[in-house]
Amino acid sequence: MTPEQLRLYLVTDRGLSLGRDIEWIVGEAVAGGVTIVQLREKDIDTREFVALGLRLKALLAPLGVPLIINDRVDVALAVDADGVHIGQSDMPYDVARRLLGPDRIIGLSVETLDQVKEANLLDVDYIAVSPVYSTPTKTDTAPPFGLEGLRQAVALSRHPGVAIGGMNAATAPAVLATGIDGIAVVSAICSAPDPRAAAAALRSL
Amino acid sequence: MTPEQLRLYLVTDRGLSLGRDIEWIVGEAVAGGVTIVQLREKDIDTREFVALGLRLKALLAPLGVPLIINDRVDVALAVDADGVHIGQSDMPYDVARRLLGPDRIIGLSVETLDQVKEANLLDVDYIAVSPVYSTPTKTDTAPPFGLEGLRQAVALSRHPGVAIGGMNAATAPAVLATGIDGIAVVSAICSAPDPRAAAAALRSL
Repeated sequence: MTPEQLRLYLVTDRGLSLGRDIEWIVGEAVAGGVTIVQLREKDIDTREFVALGLRLKALLAPLGVPLIINDRVDVALAVDADGVHIGQSDMPYDVARRLLGPDRIIGLSVETLDQVKEANLLDVDYIAVSPVYSTPTKTDTAPPFGLEGLRQAVALSRHPGVAIGGMNAATAPAVLATGIDGIAVVSAICSAPDPRAAAAALRSL
Repeated sequence: MTPEQLRLYLVTDRGLSLGRDIEWIVGEAVAGGVTIVQLREKDIDTREFVALGLRLKALLAPLGVPLIINDRVDVALAVDADGVHIGQSDMPYDVARRLLGPDRIIGLSVETLDQVKEANLLDVDYIAVSPVYSTPTKTDTAPPFGLEGLRQAVALSRHPGVAIGGMNAATAPAVLATGIDGIAVVSAICSAPDPRAAAAALRSL
Protein backbone atom coordinates (compact mmCIF):
# COMPACT_ATOMS: atom_id res chain seq x y z
CA MET A 1 0.00 0.00 0.00
CA THR A 2 1.03 3.63 -0.36
CA PRO A 3 0.87 6.30 2.36
CA GLU A 4 -1.52 8.24 0.08
CA GLN A 5 -4.07 5.45 0.56
CA LEU A 6 -4.17 6.32 4.25
CA ARG A 7 -5.29 9.89 3.62
CA LEU A 8 -8.94 9.41 4.65
CA TYR A 9 -9.59 6.12 6.43
CA LEU A 10 -13.17 5.10 7.26
CA VAL A 11 -13.84 2.70 10.14
CA THR A 12 -17.40 1.38 10.06
CA ASP A 13 -19.57 1.27 13.16
CA ARG A 14 -23.01 -0.27 13.03
CA GLY A 15 -24.16 1.40 16.24
CA LEU A 16 -23.16 4.88 15.04
CA SER A 17 -24.73 4.55 11.58
CA LEU A 18 -28.17 5.80 12.67
CA GLY A 19 -29.81 2.59 11.48
CA ARG A 20 -28.58 3.07 7.93
CA ASP A 21 -27.11 0.24 5.87
CA ILE A 22 -23.33 -0.09 6.21
CA GLU A 23 -22.91 -0.92 2.53
CA TRP A 24 -24.71 2.31 1.63
CA ILE A 25 -22.59 4.38 4.00
CA VAL A 26 -19.40 2.89 2.57
CA GLY A 27 -20.57 3.58 -0.98
CA GLU A 28 -21.35 7.19 -0.18
CA ALA A 29 -18.11 7.61 1.75
CA VAL A 30 -15.89 6.41 -1.10
CA ALA A 31 -17.86 8.54 -3.56
CA GLY A 32 -16.94 11.46 -1.30
CA GLY A 33 -13.25 10.59 -1.26
CA VAL A 34 -12.52 7.97 1.42
CA THR A 35 -9.29 6.17 0.44
CA ILE A 36 -9.45 3.01 2.57
CA VAL A 37 -12.23 1.23 4.48
CA GLN A 38 -12.06 -0.88 7.63
CA LEU A 39 -15.04 -3.12 8.33
CA ARG A 40 -15.38 -3.39 12.09
CA GLU A 41 -18.07 -5.67 13.53
CA LYS A 42 -18.05 -6.95 17.07
CA ASP A 43 -21.52 -8.40 17.55
CA ILE A 44 -22.67 -10.12 14.38
CA ASP A 45 -22.56 -13.77 13.38
CA THR A 46 -19.56 -14.90 11.36
CA ARG A 47 -21.82 -15.82 8.46
CA GLU A 48 -23.28 -12.31 8.30
CA PHE A 49 -19.79 -10.79 8.72
CA VAL A 50 -18.49 -12.79 5.75
CA ALA A 51 -21.53 -11.94 3.60
CA LEU A 52 -21.15 -8.21 4.30
CA GLY A 53 -17.40 -8.39 3.72
CA LEU A 54 -17.98 -9.99 0.32
CA ARG A 55 -20.41 -7.23 -0.64
CA LEU A 56 -17.95 -4.52 0.42
CA LYS A 57 -15.13 -6.25 -1.45
CA ALA A 58 -17.25 -6.27 -4.63
CA LEU A 59 -18.01 -2.58 -4.10
CA LEU A 60 -14.47 -1.43 -3.31
CA ALA A 61 -12.17 -3.59 -5.45
CA PRO A 62 -13.21 -1.98 -8.78
CA LEU A 63 -12.51 1.43 -7.24
CA GLY A 64 -9.06 0.43 -6.02
CA VAL A 65 -10.03 1.21 -2.43
CA PRO A 66 -8.49 -1.31 0.01
CA LEU A 67 -10.83 -3.25 2.31
CA ILE A 68 -9.43 -3.97 5.77
CA ILE A 69 -11.15 -6.31 8.25
CA ASN A 70 -10.97 -5.52 11.95
CA ASP A 71 -9.45 -8.31 14.08
CA ARG A 72 -10.88 -11.33 12.22
CA VAL A 73 -8.15 -12.92 10.13
CA ASP A 74 -10.53 -15.72 9.12
CA VAL A 75 -13.08 -13.25 7.75
CA ALA A 76 -10.32 -11.39 5.89
CA LEU A 77 -9.19 -14.63 4.25
CA ALA A 78 -12.78 -15.71 3.53
CA VAL A 79 -13.61 -12.50 1.65
CA ASP A 80 -10.14 -12.01 0.14
CA ALA A 81 -9.83 -8.65 1.87
CA ASP A 82 -6.76 -6.52 1.34
CA GLY A 83 -5.75 -6.87 4.97
CA VAL A 84 -6.61 -6.80 8.64
CA HIS A 85 -6.39 -4.24 11.38
CA ILE A 86 -5.34 -5.54 14.78
CA GLY A 87 -5.37 -3.95 18.19
CA GLN A 88 -3.15 -4.71 21.13
CA SER A 89 -5.55 -7.39 22.43
CA ASP A 90 -6.24 -8.99 19.04
CA MET A 91 -4.17 -11.72 17.40
CA PRO A 92 -0.42 -11.11 17.83
CA TYR A 93 1.19 -9.59 14.72
CA ASP A 94 3.47 -12.54 13.95
CA VAL A 95 0.58 -15.03 14.04
CA ALA A 96 -1.56 -12.79 11.84
CA ARG A 97 1.31 -12.40 9.36
CA ARG A 98 1.84 -16.15 9.22
CA LEU A 99 -1.84 -16.75 8.47
CA LEU A 100 -2.20 -13.87 5.98
CA GLY A 101 1.06 -14.26 4.09
CA PRO A 102 3.55 -11.56 3.16
CA ASP A 103 1.40 -9.50 0.80
CA ARG A 104 -1.71 -8.54 2.72
CA ILE A 105 -1.88 -5.30 4.68
CA ILE A 106 -1.62 -5.49 8.46
CA GLY A 107 -2.35 -2.35 10.44
CA LEU A 108 -1.75 -2.07 14.17
CA SER A 109 -3.27 0.25 16.76
CA VAL A 110 -0.71 1.88 19.05
CA GLU A 111 -1.85 3.51 22.26
CA THR A 112 1.48 4.67 23.75
CA LEU A 113 4.86 5.83 22.49
CA ASP A 114 6.33 2.55 23.76
CA GLN A 115 3.94 0.71 21.45
CA VAL A 116 5.11 2.93 18.56
CA LYS A 117 8.64 1.71 19.27
CA GLU A 118 7.48 -1.91 19.49
CA ALA A 119 5.70 -1.53 16.15
CA ASN A 120 9.01 -0.41 14.63
CA LEU A 121 10.28 -3.95 15.28
CA LEU A 122 7.40 -5.43 13.24
CA ASP A 123 6.70 -5.34 9.52
CA VAL A 124 3.28 -3.81 9.95
CA ASP A 125 2.10 -1.79 6.97
CA TYR A 126 0.78 1.12 8.99
CA ILE A 127 0.02 2.17 12.54
CA ALA A 128 -3.11 3.84 13.89
CA VAL A 129 -2.22 6.29 16.65
CA SER A 130 -5.13 5.91 19.05
CA PRO A 131 -6.67 8.03 20.40
CA VAL A 132 -5.46 11.50 19.55
CA TYR A 133 -8.40 13.02 21.41
CA SER A 134 -10.79 11.33 23.77
CA THR A 135 -13.96 10.25 22.02
CA PRO A 136 -17.34 8.76 22.86
CA THR A 137 -16.92 6.19 20.03
CA LYS A 138 -14.59 4.01 22.02
CA THR A 139 -14.66 4.09 25.80
CA ASP A 140 -11.96 1.49 26.51
CA THR A 141 -9.07 3.50 25.11
CA ALA A 142 -5.77 4.62 26.61
CA PRO A 143 -5.18 8.28 27.61
CA PRO A 144 -5.21 10.47 24.48
CA PHE A 145 -1.93 11.36 22.72
CA GLY A 146 -2.89 14.97 22.06
CA LEU A 147 -1.20 16.89 19.27
CA GLU A 148 2.20 16.91 20.93
CA GLY A 149 2.09 13.16 21.57
CA LEU A 150 1.03 12.60 17.97
CA ARG A 151 4.01 14.67 16.77
CA GLN A 152 6.31 12.47 18.84
CA ALA A 153 4.68 9.32 17.47
CA VAL A 154 5.16 10.52 13.90
CA ALA A 155 8.79 11.32 14.61
CA LEU A 156 9.42 7.93 16.26
CA SER A 157 7.61 5.68 13.80
CA ARG A 158 9.23 4.09 10.76
CA HIS A 159 5.76 3.19 9.45
CA PRO A 160 3.06 5.22 7.70
CA GLY A 161 0.28 6.14 10.07
CA VAL A 162 -3.21 7.43 10.63
CA ALA A 163 -4.54 9.38 13.57
CA ILE A 164 -7.80 8.23 15.17
CA GLY A 165 -9.99 9.56 17.96
CA GLY A 166 -11.88 12.82 17.70
CA MET A 167 -11.11 13.38 14.02
CA ASN A 168 -13.46 15.81 12.27
CA ALA A 169 -13.34 18.85 10.01
CA ALA A 170 -12.43 21.09 12.96
CA THR A 171 -9.62 18.95 14.37
CA ALA A 172 -8.15 17.48 11.16
CA PRO A 173 -6.07 20.46 9.92
CA ALA A 174 -3.87 20.64 13.02
CA VAL A 175 -3.63 16.84 13.10
CA LEU A 176 -2.49 16.62 9.48
CA ALA A 177 0.02 19.40 10.14
CA THR A 178 1.92 16.99 12.42
CA GLY A 179 2.98 15.06 9.33
CA ILE A 180 0.75 12.01 9.91
CA ASP A 181 -0.31 10.44 6.61
CA GLY A 182 -4.02 10.49 7.22
CA ILE A 183 -6.97 10.58 9.57
CA ALA A 184 -9.26 7.72 10.51
CA VAL A 185 -12.86 8.61 11.20
CA VAL A 186 -15.87 6.79 12.56
CA SER A 187 -18.75 9.02 13.60
CA ALA A 188 -17.68 11.98 11.43
CA ILE A 189 -18.85 9.93 8.45
CA CYS A 190 -21.00 7.09 9.86
CA SER A 191 -23.19 9.49 11.83
CA ALA A 192 -23.17 12.35 9.30
CA PRO A 193 -26.52 13.30 7.77
CA ASP A 194 -24.77 13.14 4.38
CA PRO A 195 -21.80 10.73 4.55
CA ARG A 196 -20.68 11.59 1.01
CA ALA A 197 -20.56 15.32 1.73
CA ALA A 198 -18.86 14.68 5.07
CA ALA A 199 -16.20 12.59 3.35
CA ALA A 200 -15.69 15.20 0.64
CA ALA A 201 -15.28 17.94 3.25
CA LEU A 202 -12.70 15.90 5.16
CA ARG A 203 -10.87 14.95 1.98
CA SER A 204 -10.53 18.58 0.92
CA LEU A 205 -8.62 19.51 4.05
CA MET B 1 -11.13 -38.89 13.23
CA THR B 2 -12.89 -42.03 14.40
CA PRO B 3 -16.49 -42.27 15.67
CA GLU B 4 -15.07 -43.58 18.94
CA GLN B 5 -13.47 -40.19 19.52
CA LEU B 6 -16.98 -38.69 19.67
CA ARG B 7 -18.01 -40.87 22.60
CA LEU B 8 -17.83 -38.14 25.27
CA TYR B 9 -17.50 -34.63 23.85
CA LEU B 10 -16.88 -31.69 26.18
CA VAL B 11 -17.90 -28.18 25.13
CA THR B 12 -16.39 -25.53 27.41
CA ASP B 13 -18.44 -22.68 28.80
CA ARG B 14 -16.78 -19.97 30.84
CA GLY B 15 -20.05 -18.77 32.35
CA LEU B 16 -21.05 -22.25 33.53
CA SER B 17 -17.67 -23.11 35.06
CA LEU B 18 -18.45 -21.63 38.48
CA GLY B 19 -15.47 -19.29 38.26
CA ARG B 20 -13.02 -22.16 37.87
CA ASP B 21 -10.20 -22.13 35.34
CA ILE B 22 -11.13 -23.65 31.98
CA GLU B 23 -7.75 -25.29 31.58
CA TRP B 24 -8.24 -27.03 34.92
CA ILE B 25 -11.74 -28.20 34.01
CA VAL B 26 -10.48 -29.60 30.72
CA GLY B 27 -7.61 -31.40 32.44
CA GLU B 28 -9.97 -32.99 34.96
CA ALA B 29 -12.49 -33.87 32.28
CA VAL B 30 -9.99 -35.73 30.09
CA ALA B 31 -8.61 -37.50 33.16
CA GLY B 32 -12.18 -38.69 33.70
CA GLY B 33 -12.58 -39.96 30.16
CA VAL B 34 -13.62 -37.11 27.84
CA THR B 35 -12.59 -38.07 24.29
CA ILE B 36 -12.73 -34.72 22.48
CA VAL B 37 -12.80 -31.07 23.62
CA GLN B 38 -14.39 -28.05 21.99
CA LEU B 39 -13.18 -24.65 23.19
CA ARG B 40 -16.10 -22.26 22.90
CA GLU B 41 -15.54 -18.60 23.75
CA LYS B 42 -17.84 -15.82 22.65
CA ASP B 43 -16.75 -12.83 24.70
CA ILE B 44 -12.98 -12.82 25.10
CA ASP B 45 -10.32 -10.96 23.12
CA THR B 46 -8.72 -12.82 20.26
CA ARG B 47 -5.33 -12.62 21.96
CA GLU B 48 -6.67 -14.32 25.09
CA PHE B 49 -8.56 -16.89 22.97
CA VAL B 50 -5.35 -17.81 21.12
CA ALA B 51 -3.33 -18.01 24.34
CA LEU B 52 -5.90 -20.32 25.97
CA GLY B 53 -6.13 -22.42 22.81
CA LEU B 54 -2.35 -22.90 22.81
CA ARG B 55 -2.44 -24.03 26.43
CA LEU B 56 -5.23 -26.53 25.73
CA LYS B 57 -3.41 -27.81 22.65
CA ALA B 58 -0.30 -28.44 24.77
CA LEU B 59 -2.46 -30.25 27.33
CA LEU B 60 -4.47 -32.39 24.91
CA ALA B 61 -2.09 -33.27 22.07
CA PRO B 62 0.10 -35.64 24.18
CA LEU B 63 -3.08 -37.43 25.26
CA GLY B 64 -4.34 -37.86 21.70
CA VAL B 65 -7.52 -35.94 22.54
CA PRO B 66 -8.60 -33.69 19.62
CA LEU B 67 -9.01 -29.97 20.27
CA ILE B 68 -11.83 -28.31 18.34
CA ILE B 69 -12.34 -24.53 18.23
CA ASN B 70 -15.87 -23.15 18.08
CA ASP B 71 -16.54 -20.89 15.08
CA ARG B 72 -13.15 -19.15 14.85
CA VAL B 73 -11.20 -20.60 11.95
CA ASP B 74 -8.41 -18.06 12.53
CA VAL B 75 -7.97 -19.16 16.13
CA ALA B 76 -7.96 -22.81 15.05
CA LEU B 77 -5.19 -22.10 12.55
CA ALA B 78 -3.28 -19.95 15.03
CA VAL B 79 -3.15 -22.70 17.66
CA ASP B 80 -2.91 -25.61 15.20
CA ALA B 81 -6.12 -27.08 16.57
CA ASP B 82 -7.43 -30.36 15.21
CA GLY B 83 -10.50 -28.67 13.79
CA VAL B 84 -13.41 -26.29 14.14
CA HIS B 85 -17.04 -26.63 15.03
CA ILE B 86 -19.44 -24.44 13.07
CA GLY B 87 -23.08 -23.64 13.58
CA GLN B 88 -25.62 -22.66 10.99
CA SER B 89 -24.82 -18.95 11.41
CA ASP B 90 -21.04 -19.38 11.48
CA MET B 91 -18.75 -19.47 8.46
CA PRO B 92 -20.22 -21.56 5.62
CA TYR B 93 -18.75 -25.08 5.43
CA ASP B 94 -17.13 -24.66 2.04
CA VAL B 95 -15.30 -21.50 3.09
CA ALA B 96 -14.13 -23.09 6.33
CA ARG B 97 -12.90 -26.16 4.42
CA ARG B 98 -10.99 -23.98 1.97
CA LEU B 99 -9.25 -22.13 4.79
CA LEU B 100 -8.56 -25.22 6.93
CA GLY B 101 -7.51 -27.63 4.21
CA PRO B 102 -8.64 -31.23 3.70
CA ASP B 103 -7.25 -32.79 6.86
CA ARG B 104 -8.66 -30.82 9.76
CA ILE B 105 -11.90 -31.85 11.44
CA ILE B 106 -15.01 -29.79 10.69
CA GLY B 107 -18.10 -30.45 12.78
CA LEU B 108 -21.48 -28.91 12.02
CA SER B 109 -24.48 -28.29 14.26
CA VAL B 110 -27.78 -29.43 12.74
CA GLU B 111 -31.02 -28.21 14.21
CA THR B 112 -33.57 -29.85 11.91
CA LEU B 113 -33.87 -33.03 9.84
CA ASP B 114 -33.58 -30.89 6.72
CA GLN B 115 -30.20 -29.72 7.97
CA VAL B 116 -29.18 -33.34 8.51
CA LYS B 117 -29.92 -33.93 4.82
CA GLU B 118 -28.02 -30.79 3.82
CA ALA B 119 -25.04 -31.97 5.87
CA ASN B 120 -25.07 -35.22 3.89
CA LEU B 121 -24.08 -33.14 0.85
CA LEU B 122 -21.00 -31.81 2.67
CA ASP B 123 -17.79 -33.53 3.71
CA VAL B 124 -18.18 -32.59 7.35
CA ASP B 125 -16.48 -34.96 9.75
CA TYR B 126 -19.34 -35.15 12.21
CA ILE B 127 -22.67 -33.53 13.01
CA ALA B 128 -23.95 -32.33 16.37
CA VAL B 129 -27.70 -32.92 16.65
CA SER B 130 -28.86 -29.89 18.62
CA PRO B 131 -30.74 -29.79 20.89
CA VAL B 132 -32.07 -33.20 21.84
CA TYR B 133 -33.74 -31.72 24.91
CA SER B 134 -34.32 -28.09 25.74
CA THR B 135 -31.62 -26.74 27.99
CA PRO B 136 -30.83 -23.60 29.94
CA THR B 137 -27.25 -23.60 28.51
CA LYS B 138 -28.31 -22.22 25.16
CA THR B 139 -31.48 -20.20 24.86
CA ASP B 140 -31.34 -19.42 21.13
CA THR B 141 -31.84 -22.98 19.94
CA ALA B 142 -34.36 -24.58 17.63
CA PRO B 143 -37.18 -26.80 18.98
CA PRO B 144 -35.69 -29.96 20.53
CA PHE B 145 -35.41 -33.16 18.48
CA GLY B 146 -36.48 -35.45 21.31
CA LEU B 147 -35.52 -39.12 21.22
CA GLU B 148 -37.66 -39.95 18.20
CA GLY B 149 -36.24 -37.01 16.22
CA LEU B 150 -32.74 -38.07 17.19
CA ARG B 151 -33.45 -41.62 15.96
CA GLN B 152 -34.55 -40.18 12.62
CA ALA B 153 -31.44 -37.99 12.44
CA VAL B 154 -29.18 -40.99 13.09
CA ALA B 155 -30.98 -42.98 10.41
CA LEU B 156 -30.76 -40.13 7.87
CA SER B 157 -27.18 -39.05 8.43
CA ARG B 158 -24.20 -40.45 6.58
CA HIS B 159 -21.87 -38.80 9.13
CA PRO B 160 -20.87 -39.74 12.66
CA GLY B 161 -22.70 -37.67 15.22
CA VAL B 162 -23.05 -36.45 18.76
CA ALA B 163 -26.21 -35.49 20.60
CA ILE B 164 -26.24 -32.20 22.52
CA GLY B 165 -28.77 -30.47 24.74
CA GLY B 166 -29.79 -31.84 28.12
CA MET B 167 -27.19 -34.61 28.18
CA ASN B 168 -26.45 -35.99 31.65
CA ALA B 169 -26.15 -39.31 33.44
CA ALA B 170 -29.94 -39.66 33.56
CA THR B 171 -30.64 -38.89 29.91
CA ALA B 172 -27.55 -40.40 28.25
CA PRO B 173 -28.49 -44.13 28.26
CA ALA B 174 -31.64 -43.67 26.17
CA VAL B 175 -29.83 -41.19 23.91
CA LEU B 176 -26.94 -43.61 23.24
CA ALA B 177 -29.48 -46.36 22.57
CA THR B 178 -30.56 -44.47 19.45
CA GLY B 179 -27.22 -45.39 17.85
CA ILE B 180 -25.67 -41.93 18.01
CA ASP B 181 -21.89 -42.13 18.41
CA GLY B 182 -21.62 -39.95 21.48
CA ILE B 183 -22.95 -37.24 23.72
CA ALA B 184 -21.77 -33.65 23.97
CA VAL B 185 -22.02 -32.05 27.38
CA VAL B 186 -21.55 -28.57 28.75
CA SER B 187 -22.93 -28.04 32.25
CA ALA B 188 -22.87 -31.75 33.19
CA ILE B 189 -19.10 -31.40 33.38
CA CYS B 190 -18.34 -27.64 33.50
CA SER B 191 -20.72 -27.07 36.41
CA ALA B 192 -20.07 -30.37 38.20
CA PRO B 193 -18.55 -30.14 41.70
CA ASP B 194 -16.03 -32.77 40.53
CA PRO B 195 -15.60 -32.57 36.72
CA ARG B 196 -13.35 -35.65 36.65
CA ALA B 197 -15.87 -37.80 38.49
CA ALA B 198 -18.69 -36.42 36.35
CA ALA B 199 -16.79 -37.30 33.17
CA ALA B 200 -15.97 -40.79 34.47
CA ALA B 201 -19.63 -41.41 35.32
CA LEU B 202 -20.75 -40.31 31.85
CA ARG B 203 -18.02 -42.32 30.16
CA SER B 204 -19.05 -45.50 31.95
CA LEU B 205 -22.56 -45.39 30.50
